[in-house]
Amino acid sequence: MKQTYVVIMAGGVGTRFWPFSRTSNPKQFHDVLGTGKTLLQQTAERFDGICTPDHIYIVTSAEYKDLVKEQLPFLTDEQILLEPVRRNTAPCIGYACYKIAAKDPQANIVVAPADHIILKEDAFRERIRVALAATAEADILVTLGIQPSRPDTGYGYIQYMTDSEGEVKKVKTFTEKPHLELAQQFLDSGEFVWNAGIFVWNAQAILRAFEKHLPEMAELFEEGNELYYSETEQPFINRAYTHCRSISIDNGVMEKADNVYVVLSEFGWSDLGTWKSLYEVSGKDRNENVIDGRVMLYDTTNCIIKTPKERLVVVNGLDGYIVAEYDNVLLICRKDEEQKVKDFVSDAKEKGTQFV
Amino acid sequence: MKQTYVVIMAGGVGTRFWPFSRTSNPKQFHDVLGTGKTLLQQTAERFDGICTPDHIYIVTSAEYKDLVKEQLPFLTDEQILLEPVRRNTAPCIGYACYKIAAKDPQANIVVAPADHIILKEDAFRERIRVALAATAEADILVTLGIQPSRPDTGYGYIQYMTDSEGEVKKVKTFTEKPHLELAQQFLDSGEFVWNAGIFVWNAQAILRAFEKHLPEMAELFEEGNELYYSETEQPFINRAYTHCRSISIDNGVMEKADNVYVVLSEFGWSDLGTWKSLYEVSGKDRNENVIDGRVMLYDTTNCIIKTPKERLVVVNGLDGYIVAEYDNVLLICRKDEEQKVKDFVSDAKEKGTQFV
Repeated sequence: MKQTYVVIMAGGVGTRFWPFSRTSNPKQFHDVLGTGKTLLQQTAERFDGICTPDHIYIVTSAEYKDLVKEQLPFLTDEQILLEPVRRNTAPCIGYACYKIAAKDPQANIVVAPADHIILKEDAFRERIRVALAATAEADILVTLGIQPSRPDTGYGYIQYMTDSEGEVKKVKTFTEKPHLELAQQFLDSGEFVWNAGIFVWNAQAILRAFEKHLPEMAELFEEGNELYYSETEQPFINRAYTHCRSISIDNGVMEKADNVYVVLSEFGWSDLGTWKSLYEVSGKDRNENVIDGRVMLYDTTNCIIKTPKERLVVVNGLDGYIVAEYDNVLLICRKDEEQKVKDFVSDAKEKGTQFV
Repeated sequence: MKQTYVVIMAGGVGTRFWPFSRTSNPKQFHDVLGTGKTLLQQTAERFDGICTPDHIYIVTSAEYKDLVKEQLPFLTDEQILLEPVRRNTAPCIGYACYKIAAKDPQANIVVAPADHIILKEDAFRERIRVALAATAEADILVTLGIQPSRPDTGYGYIQYMTDSEGEVKKVKTFTEKPHLELAQQFLDSGEFVWNAGIFVWNAQAILRAFEKHLPEMAELFEEGNELYYSETEQPFINRAYTHCRSISIDNGVMEKADNVYVVLSEFGWSDLGTWKSLYEVSGKDRNENVIDGRVMLYDTTNCIIKTPKERLVVVNGLDGYIVAEYDNVLLICRKDEEQKVKDFVSDAKEKGTQFV
């Protein structure tokens, strides 16, 4: 019987969620939904019953080490993997899987981002168990695919073999974020699901995939086999990362591998990547406004307003805007132009590093 | 030769200028234009050369006494007149003029609000001197009339005899705020000027006008003749005000009197009554935005943005809005609906008295 491990990726800066998500305090460390738990804490708790706390590994940037320890005090230092620089998801996943494999070559591993929202946790765990059962038996790469509810252009899509039997479907193609027309075609075809970026595999399967599709990276992390769980792990990783190319696991592995499977899922998922996704997932007033703050609205519709509790916010005559304030930055932006937020952040750097 | 006295009315709460103007700190005590001087300080300095500092009287609410003393430290307590309750301009002016007359029956008096903006101070002083010269000679009630530049519906208008000779024109009628069509007719006729609410008269003329048009009020303030400038002034005034009706000097005196004259004026005047009037009087960027704060604008036009310096404000896609933050209240409101601000203030009371 394989043991289950969970790798939580918590190193992102969440720029599109600015000003709430800040370099010094990205969104995964916030209580975004006002539930009393941060996204990272929610993510860790979501695996309750899937694996034991000592099998949860967090990969993050060195600068967030204290935030992680504070929010998940049960973790030992060995379970907190610190990336010296950001190199996208492939090195992050490679590091974690090679480290876990060095200790337990039979490990069964779930990889999940720290900043997603999942409303139906029971349904989520049930799907994870289906995937883990499959990867316990076969050396395959499994991803969770979300039944799409709209032609969203912000997600990657996965096309699967609709005639494949059982709950674990063979994947035909991974796609990048499509334009609207294509997204609608994907939706109409019934063959596509959203790529949630949640992966399940056993240690041998993912190590073999790295060897085959990212051989230089595989070689780098293999060199650490004797160093993981020792005092020399961090210096080794700091060196290794300088040689790592920046590439996503999707581009580096999933799109190339021929043993990729998808578990179709519906569990109230949102990647919470943008203000719009928070808007979608949140409760609304009768004028379709999402409100988190001390707010008085007049003639205001389809807005998301998230402001500090101590401030009274009065809005008159706005339709379809984001009004967000956090830590001395106030953003007022048309909701349908939220893709510009990245540019604002880049411009805001010039006004002072405390604002980004 | 009559001595000149200046009465500055500084008791208003400026509700339409919320959240900047607050009950605990109304707009006349703010440095609205960012010049380093509050409106009250600017108003007092404007009379430099017109009268000596010991002849300046401020009428305000008891609650603002400390603000006035702090901002105009040269004043003695005798020069600060404290109204126990707000009763509009007639009691305010009556109190000040009866008090001054009790000391100097030959006084020549200018009455001006504390919260106006006057850009051309030299032109202002020249007009005031013209008016004072007239009231030194004759027992008439003089008001300053501003040459209108647009059919503004926010001001009262004064119709004057265009064929009257000299610089001091006989007034035909005082009018309330007109609707737009009528305002345009006023403008087209060339016989109307804006009522700036700045008055000049000698003590005998205004006392006689009170006796004639507001006899009960005249009687009340006359009773204080032996008490002004004594320790019993304040208790007397506190009692007297409970008997005063609330009425404006326009309704109570100017509209009824037949000895009213106007000095035509052009000195860059704004009553700064509303956000729109601040917008009109302020410098604008190339997209017609008025900006006071640390602000980044994208695709934003015709807005007025006035926010705390420590906060970075990013606005994308707004046309014609007020964005104003002061002391934990943020207002976002269509500029052409600013008349609603009064309602917001009234509603905001329910959220907490600190917000109004």
